[in-house]
Amino acid sequence: MILRLGLIGTGFMGKAHALAYRAAGAVFGDLPEVQLSVLCDTPAPSAQKHARQFGFARPTDDWRALVASPDVDIVSITTPNGLHKEMALAAIAAGKHVHCEKPMALTIEDAEEMEAAARTAGVHTMVGYNYIHNPAVGHARKLIADGVIGTPVHFRGWVDEDYQADPNLPWTWRARRADAGLGTLGDLGCHLVSMSQVLMGEIDSLIADTQIIHKTRPMPDGSGHGTVENEDTASAILRYKNGAQGTMCTSRSAWGRKNKLDWEVHGTKGMITFSQERLNELQLFTNEGPRAEQGFRTILTGADHPPYAAFCPAPGHQLGFGDLKTIEVANFLRAVAARQETYPNFTDALAIERVIHAIDTSARDGARVSL
Amino acid sequence: MILRLGLIGTGFMGKAHALAYRAAGAVFGDLPEVQLSVLCDTPAPSAQKHARQFGFARPTDDWRALVASPDVDIVSITTPNGLHKEMALAAIAAGKHVHCEKPMALTIEDAEEMEAAARTAGVHTMVGYNYIHNPAVGHARKLIADGVIGTPVHFRGWVDEDYQADPNLPWTWRARRADAGLGTLGDLGCHLVSMSQVLMGEIDSLIADTQIIHKTRPMPDGSGHGTVENEDTASAILRYKNGAQGTMCTSRSAWGRKNKLDWEVHGTKGMITFSQERLNELQLFTNEGPRAEQGFRTILTGADHPPYAAFCPAPGHQLGFGDLKTIEVANFLRAVAARQETYPNFTDALAIERVIHAIDTSARDGARVSL
Amino acid sequence: MILRLGLIGTGFMGKAHALAYRAAGAVFGDLPEVQLSVLCDTPAPSAQKHARQFGFARPTDDWRALVASPDVDIVSITTPNGLHKEMALAAIAAGKHVHCEKPMALTIEDAEEMEAAARTAGVHTMVGYNYIHNPAVGHARKLIADGVIGTPVHFRGWVDEDYQADPNLPWTWRARRADAGLGTLGDLGCHLVSMSQVLMGEIDSLIADTQIIHKTRPMPDGSGHGTVENEDTASAILRYKNGAQGTMCTSRSAWGRKNKLDWEVHGTKGMITFSQERLNELQLFTNEGPRAEQGFRTILTGADHPPYAAFCPAPGHQLGFGDLKTIEVANFLRAVAARQETYPNFTDALAIERVIHAIDTSARDGARVSL
Amino acid sequence: MILRLGLIGTGFMGKAHALAYRAAGAVFGDLPEVQLSVLCDTPAPSAQKHARQFGFARPTDDWRALVASPDVDIVSITTPNGLHKEMALAAIAAGKHVHCEKPMALTIEDAEEMEAAARTAGVHTMVGYNYIHNPAVGHARKLIADGVIGTPVHFRGWVDEDYQADPNLPWTWRARRADAGLGTLGDLGCHLVSMSQVLMGEIDSLIADTQIIHKTRPMPDGSGHGTVENEDTASAILRYKNGAQGTMCTSRSAWGRKNKLDWEVHGTKGMITFSQERLNELQLFTNEGPRAEQGFRTILTGADHPPYAAFCPAPGHQLGFGDLKTIEVANFLRAVAARQETYPNFTDALAIERVIHAIDTSARDGARVSL
Repeated sequence: MILRLGLIGTGFMGKAHALAYRAAGAVFGDLPEVQLSVLCDTPAPSAQKHARQFGFARPTDDWRALVASPDVDIVSITTPNGLHKEMALAAIAAGKHVHCEKPMALTIEDAEEMEAAARTAGVHTMVGYNYIHNPAVGHARKLIADGVIGTPVHFRGWVDEDYQADPNLPWTWRARRADAGLGTLGDLGCHLVSMSQVLMGEIDSLIADTQIIHKTRPMPDGSGHGTVENEDTASAILRYKNGAQGTMCTSRSAWGRKNKLDWEVHGTKGMITFSQERLNELQLFTNEGPRAEQGFRTILTGADHPPYAAFCPAPGHQLGFGDLKTIEVANFLRAVAARQETYPNFTDALAIERVIHAIDTSARDGARVSL
Repeated sequence: MILRLGLIGTGFMGKAHALAYRAAGAVFGDLPEVQLSVLCDTPAPSAQKHARQFGFARPTDDWRALVASPDVDIVSITTPNGLHKEMALAAIAAGKHVHCEKPMALTIEDAEEMEAAARTAGVHTMVGYNYIHNPAVGHARKLIADGVIGTPVHFRGWVDEDYQADPNLPWTWRARRADAGLGTLGDLGCHLVSMSQVLMGEIDSLIADTQIIHKTRPMPDGSGHGTVENEDTASAILRYKNGAQGTMCTSRSAWGRKNKLDWEVHGTKGMITFSQERLNELQLFTNEGPRAEQGFRTILTGADHPPYAAFCPAPGHQLGFGDLKTIEVANFLRAVAARQETYPNFTDALAIERVIHAIDTSARDGARVSL
Repeated sequence: MILRLGLIGTGFMGKAHALAYRAAGAVFGDLPEVQLSVLCDTPAPSAQKHARQFGFARPTDDWRALVASPDVDIVSITTPNGLHKEMALAAIAAGKHVHCEKPMALTIEDAEEMEAAARTAGVHTMVGYNYIHNPAVGHARKLIADGVIGTPVHFRGWVDEDYQADPNLPWTWRARRADAGLGTLGDLGCHLVSMSQVLMGEIDSLIADTQIIHKTRPMPDGSGHGTVENEDTASAILRYKNGAQGTMCTSRSAWGRKNKLDWEVHGTKGMITFSQERLNELQLFTNEGPRAEQGFRTILTGADHPPYAAFCPAPGHQLGFGDLKTIEVANFLRAVAARQETYPNFTDALAIERVIHAIDTSARDGARVSL
Repeated sequence: MILRLGLIGTGFMGKAHALAYRAAGAVFGDLPEVQLSVLCDTPAPSAQKHARQFGFARPTDDWRALVASPDVDIVSITTPNGLHKEMALAAIAAGKHVHCEKPMALTIEDAEEMEAAARTAGVHTMVGYNYIHNPAVGHARKLIADGVIGTPVHFRGWVDEDYQADPNLPWTWRARRADAGLGTLGDLGCHLVSMSQVLMGEIDSLIADTQIIHKTRPMPDGSGHGTVENEDTASAILRYKNGAQGTMCTSRSAWGRKNKLDWEVHGTKGMITFSQERLNELQLFTNEGPRAEQGFRTILTGADHPPYAAFCPAPGHQLGFGDLKTIEVANFLRAVAARQETYPNFTDALAIERVIHAIDTSARDGARVSL
């Protein structure tokens, strides 16, 4: 089977998708063949340059042509968030499978519309929550499922970066709700929610608060200051459907943090913790053996943690960011080929994104929000 | 000047006080002389044994006699929390200075009564929030005051242990509100609040939730199960008076955590983080120098971080738990001798403890609580 | 320009080469085009399967045909070490550029023969010391060159794994000198030497000792025990040509170590340390700024550390093992295209491998060995 | 039983001894009573001031009077190393038990003389290798004795500080062999050897090298430069009597290191590692359980690691440098009271110090030295 890819976007995520689709088959060996058909970027010379670099058959600067193209089975959407909806709906309308970056859309209503369209059309979808595909995370899920830490009863999660920490950074469209939607919740927080979903299950309700640290920023053209409309930090206290509780915090203004997506799962027999800035490690404590020898152990991922071995047979040699994207792509390719759903499709991602919007709502209304 | 000590209690904290009062003068060299006058414990043989071990002049099994004794200037109270109030009020009524373990009392009303009595009587008081006397914490305060991380805008704090993590532990009086008051908030959470106070200033309002993980525990006599009435975990989202926000979380059921009182102060120019399980280290990030060389630096406390040098002139040789208590005692002795207040006295501690009760209240009422 | 690859081997390193040659052009964008021409493996069906998986134009089970093939410009040799020499000499004789895995050969004489052949033939060569291409290591070299830590005066290095730690593992050909050459020195130690070369320069002389921990191992067929002829551990004390001193240690029997290639460079103004098991981090201490704020800082690699940004623009997102191989391949492709030498070619690698053989010699003779 | 202490010295180690002898009885409860009789320092006002501060009955500026005093049973010697011998011999001649700081003396001949004198006189002795009394180290010894890591087959040790790292520090008497003896080996290296002795047993032979990084230093009076006669770094490769091998390295010029006495014990079933800068932690790896869950575990010392509980019943609350000295004192007091030997007495310490002198000898002679 051959699956033909049309990729829209050549930025951070566009390149990540291109590299992952190029690599996945060679890494895994059991995937449907991928054909890199069309790459869309603007202006046209950029599309040409990147198509050549990434190995796509042809470039275009017209995404509508791409989604309509008969030599495209899968459309990858890696454009700014505000463009996802229109592109996804067009691709779905054309009967294409859609691989969309997170978050799905600026508003929950837009995400709902996308989800309904995909469901109705019966196409396969995948949203780019790539961190959950980490073998370390997969092993954590296995440990939880196997009861190694007993019943999970509490969750703590954080995801922090510092790309908006500097008060002197100029105002950009990212600060305007109409263009960018949520702030740190949309950029970072949704990744944390995706972890929470796979580790702890569905959230039942939450209370939350958000904060705009830098309320204005200098306009790049020197014309005074622009207002920052979306949150720099967000914090939520969660109640899960299974009775557990927990907290989530995110900041885009946390100096020194580069990709600090950390979490803890507290169980009745042990605890698992993880830090994305050391993505090849898992910390596990279990209440077993002599107390004098108990302690958190640092598990380095390796061949015992699928699908690490597809990349390298030797433990501790480490996967990188791009490898996680390659796993995501492989999962999607398998799903499309088998005509099965994979996690997280638009329906799953909608549930993830409902949470970040619920946090925003609770912070605005000062009241508990049920999901 | 000689200050004569009457100590009530010989448990974990009683011994910690005894060792600290024995050591403080020899460590610091500039303190009023301490005379270990009376040690109270029950039954009488235990008082005798421990008086001999700790070097007290005489034992007693009658705390009322101790607080009334003319050869006692300072009364240290290290008994279970439910006894603090009665003992403190009696000591204050006898004109004694009072060094009381945290939390002050089971209820905020009791703590208020203690605070009012001390204030009215004009005696000096100190509450055992010993972790804030760590040279590492003192240095963090200095860094913040000096603007090294800019304006503090966000706080994160956690304090976790695992002494109630095991579902099979029997029911004890600690699970009954009437006897023990709050759960993890009273045992651990208040330590975290003390950190928040000295690092970030006063909290304005908060929303919170709490959780009882193990809702019943087996009665030790085999007579079925007893109800756990106080919280295993608590989480709060804070708004500070200075406009900062933050979160606090605590659990007494967090497997593998032994004294994990960690915090982060996010500033506009940098970040400071700390972990009590590595109490001689401070992590500092500042947005300075070439970006390619920026990173969190691990500062090992030493002679440049007062009063570390009183214990040891060499950096990285490390202070222990007992040393922090010795600093607390030294601060109190200096205050009593100088007839000045020191931090945290009953008034300060009342502010600390209002926060943990506010967390409890918000969790029960589901509403924001102002402080 | 198009460079056509013939790859021999499909194991751990064969796959790593295949993935890296597939990815390099798309990652870097400024490389000569790579054509995956021929993949050699035995038996033939394995060659076929892997050629399909890795995207090679055609398979072969005849490496001599591969090296002679007119549609091959570069020969990658990833077979067991004992086969490198014959293959490399044949490739060189056919005028091909050679990318060979480390170590070059079983004996220093064989490596010398390979080096001389390549030098005489004027072909380009590269040996697979991929860890030195890590952006973190590159930044360490820059810091040293810029004098940030003053003059480098001392080096410490270790490289440990545990693949031979279990006493119950059966005897294999790897334990026989005639087949495998050196033990941990050849497998692991040479990687450490490559670090030493790029960080500290040439070694002048050394003293050393080696150890066979498990002197025999059970034969896999149950026929008693076979003798282990090569070292499980090796240690050396070094004098560098620049006057610095240092130590190197390696073990293949160090339980719990998976890829622990760690080093420290001690300078007159600071220190840099690194750990391969956390390959995206560099630790830097400099004697600058207030003493109370000094400490080792953890630098997370990012766009400020070339060529990280070719993979991902965001810091802290992390490169993996495969990405380091991709950088190695890119360096080689650029060198071949420009008809320039790149580091480490056969001449450089020979210097690296002289060191591990000098360690072996010193350990056998009990005397200082000059290089 | 009452044991009466005469302490010579009030510097770093003098104060550490004073605090430890003050605290030990109260901490442990089962020790002979200590009476702080005489404190010797010069000039006399310093002795007076410190005697008052530390709680000694009387001061003196005449150490010969102290060692001869009838109200002294134990003489603690904490003066510069060059004075140890004369004082110890005098104290032994007076029939006193001797607690002497490390290293025993400037030369091995002096140490031998001290050891012979103590042995002949039948007095009890203790040398201040306090780090080996750490509960974490004690637990490591127990793990090894219990076979938890199998047979110990390899050792790695380092001990680094940076008090001589700055090239601009002035010349002092510490740089002259006649006054100071060895360099980093005497200050730091011997601590590491003490660890090696208790963890691995006796060393059989070694090869070594040393290095003077800063060969001259500016004279404090501006009169040019003085020569540094003793080593800044030392490295040795060891063969143990039990067949194990290992390495030791030490530097007093390692920027950023404050008390970095780290070690690894490699066994046939696991590994234990330790770092003095995190003295309450032990890292343990064992080849047990599912491979996917194996990893180094961080054991935080607590009540399960004697004698931690004498200080604090709660794990993870941490001991400090002073507490280790208190354990050393307690061990010595018990030994003296019971008329038994304790580790490390002068005979044990002589064996420790033979190793550092053997390292110096091997470095000078360029040959293997047998012990």
